[in-house]
Amino acid sequence: MILLTNDDGIFSDGIRALREAIVSKEKAIVVAPDSEQSAVGHAITISNPLRVKETHFNGEFWGYAVSGTPADCVKIAVGSLLEEKPKIVISGINHGGNLGTCVIYSGTVSAATEAAILGIPSIAVSLNDFENLDFSFAASFIAKFYPQVLSMNLPKGIVLNVNVPAIPGSEIKGVVFAKQGGLKVVDEFEKRKDPRGNLYYWMSGDVVLDPNEKNTDGEYVSKNYVTITPVHYDLTHYKTLEKLKDVKIDF
Amino acid sequence: MILLTNDDGIFSDGIRALREAIVSKEKAIVVAPDSEQSAVGHAITISNPLRVKETHFNGEFWGYAVSGTPADCVKIAVGSLLEEKPKIVISGINHGGNLGTCVIYSGTVSAATEAAILGIPSIAVSLNDFENLDFSFAASFIAKFYPQVLSMNLPKGIVLNVNVPAIPGSEIKGVVFAKQGGLKVVDEFEKRKDPRGNLYYWMSGDVVLDPNEKNTDGEYVSKNYVTITPVHYDLTHYKTLEKLKDVKIDF
Repeated sequence: MILLTNDDGIFSDGIRALREAIVSKEKAIVVAPDSEQSAVGHAITISNPLRVKETHFNGEFWGYAVSGTPADCVKIAVGSLLEEKPKIVISGINHGGNLGTCVIYSGTVSAATEAAILGIPSIAVSLNDFENLDFSFAASFIAKFYPQVLSMNLPKGIVLNVNVPAIPGSEIKGVVFAKQGGLKVVDEFEKRKDPRGNLYYWMSGDVVLDPNEKNTDGEYVSKNYVTITPVHYDLTHYKTLEKLKDVKIDF
Repeated sequence: MILLTNDDGIFSDGIRALREAIVSKEKAIVVAPDSEQSAVGHAITISNPLRVKETHFNGEFWGYAVSGTPADCVKIAVGSLLEEKPKIVISGINHGGNLGTCVIYSGTVSAATEAAILGIPSIAVSLNDFENLDFSFAASFIAKFYPQVLSMNLPKGIVLNVNVPAIPGSEIKGVVFAKQGGLKVVDEFEKRKDPRGNLYYWMSGDVVLDPNEKNTDGEYVSKNYVTITPVHYDLTHYKTLEKLKDVKIDF
């Protein structure tokens, strides 16, 4: 059994395309947020209770809609809702790439990371466009790819973060393993006044490709490659730790 | 000028103790959430506007209360509210440790990470207890420590994640640099019925020290050491990337 989740919501186009490509091969259960949860990072819900609703689609059992974040969905699915441990968790297909620094804001990747923490292999998958709604190539790619992932015997704790260019499958140049990077968010804040004269701010901002960083997920996707980045949740910067370890700190 | 932020809210005990220890040496401005934001991970607010309120305390300028997450606070402070770039961002003092896997759920660490992304040195600091309210040792430690950090010339993108045992300063055994690890969250979900008979779930769970992992932040804090862990936002697992790079993937 495969657990599917996302951050765009339980009936979004991306997860429907993904489920359709997978159910012909294997049982898939969707446990996903009941509303859009983009840019929630690795949030979990501890101050409010979670509501869970068994959900059907076209008369068929679909899964569970959860009033929480993508990480909540994986936690509650594995900890309480599912009768067996899923063999793999696939999160997506996200509407919009999860490349470079953007990965740390990603609900899609956080759901897959939560699976990795629970010792379950996982894939996060994103389509690198906010306009193009054609998830068919990305979905069929993942349906072919996940059995390979299961046979790779990756170390525990690894998430494969997959980004797919939003172009027809015939124009895809190849599939590469690449490091996270190359993209950064340049924030902008737009100041406005509400009808009562009070200030508020909208966060906007552009995602910019950094030409100085090479062989990154951001660079390869922009050149029409599917990218796969192995990521993990140990944030330690070991090189710096090594350098600092003999520094004396007063207290 | 130093930017202070946190995830417990703009007037929480931890940030007040931190500010008090620092303002005797240097100008400090607090830009922090207007309400508690624990376990928000690296969330940012894109679907709602942010409200910002200039804030005073005991007749003195304190900073800005923001209707968003810790990462939002740092983004809007640096991008819009502050007149100069802070020389360092300090996030905390958090009520409760940010050790092991818990780091990825931490609003405290995410605020410091946001500073690192913006090219500003940063420290996250947490007191490892949910009961003990004595932040005095942790605050005076950070007031001594941050000038040292500025002279360390750490590579860009590094956050120093500091955890302080919740014991009197006289019982602290020392300060060590340690890797993230050793602790994990064991989730539990408690099922309840509301007064109308509908099910809901509370996430609870214990934080457990893993005796198999050695020299971790979790282990040292439990032995009464202050720990400092250099963390970063490049989640790439380079060893796995190296192993996979010649694997052929069909598409």
